[in-house]
Amino acid sequence: MSDIKALESAKVGTAMALEQFLDQVKFNEQGLVPAVAQDKASGVVLMLAWMNRESIEQTLTTGQVVYFSRSRQSLWRKGETSGNTQALESMRFDCDADAILVSVEQIGPACHTERTHCFYLQVQGDQVIVDSAPDTSDS
Amino acid sequence: MSDIKALESAKVGTAMALEQFLDQVKFNEQGLVPAVAQDKASGVVLMLAWMNRESIEQTLTTGQVVYFSRSRQSLWRKGETSGNTQALESMRFDCDADAILVSVEQIGPACHTERTHCFYLQVQGDQVIVDSAPDTSDS
Repeated sequence: MSDIKALESAKVGTAMALEQFLDQVKFNEQGLVPAVAQDKASGVVLMLAWMNRESIEQTLTTGQVVYFSRSRQSLWRKGETSGNTQALESMRFDCDADAILVSVEQIGPACHTERTHCFYLQVQGDQVIVDSAPDTSDS
Repeated sequence: MSDIKALESAKVGTAMALEQFLDQVKFNEQGLVPAVAQDKASGVVLMLAWMNRESIEQTLTTGQVVYFSRSRQSLWRKGETSGNTQALESMRFDCDADAILVSVEQIGPACHTERTHCFYLQVQGDQVIVDSAPDTSDS
């Protein structure tokens, strides 16, 4: 298979070479696609960040999730400074090849606020509520 | 609270008015933020699409998830033609207010390929594999 569109109706197990697939990923004008990280054990959606081709390739090569920091405009080896790394369990692309889902083993909190995950601002009626606290355990 | 940044260290239960919060959401240059839909029962990450402010407001008002279609450049009431709607359970924003997580009750398959979810293209070694088939049940 050489065309992502053709994979839509392909049988389970049909394969495409990774390099050929990455050539067809729909990176945006900054060369990025959104990547969602999900905790493999709990199923919790931890965070959404961005990857360029190099960060995808480094994630796959090293087995540790690497994003691209839009603020720093450089590769972001998740946990490099905090120690809160994400070991890659699996990487999946969506039907349109413009989004990534990584299943990860998260060490420590995923969020820079020290919360387990980043999605702690929940809409309730006409308000947005802080719905969880930083993780203060030592684990 | 009037500043999203201040919510980082705010106590659980701290609230901000929704309108004030939405004024601070970091929409991109197209006025959009990525939105991840997760099945509330299974925890499966179903899809990633995009929302503008109007689609966020309509999602909250109607209780049915509304995205913004980048290809059609118009509001996309998920399931309007297919019947595969997403009833909203909860909507959360992340720490930076530049991504959304909606927990949904998905009716039928979420993916336009008739698969349960869109992330069926899994990297395995130096290949990408189709790892699930369209849902052919009548449920």
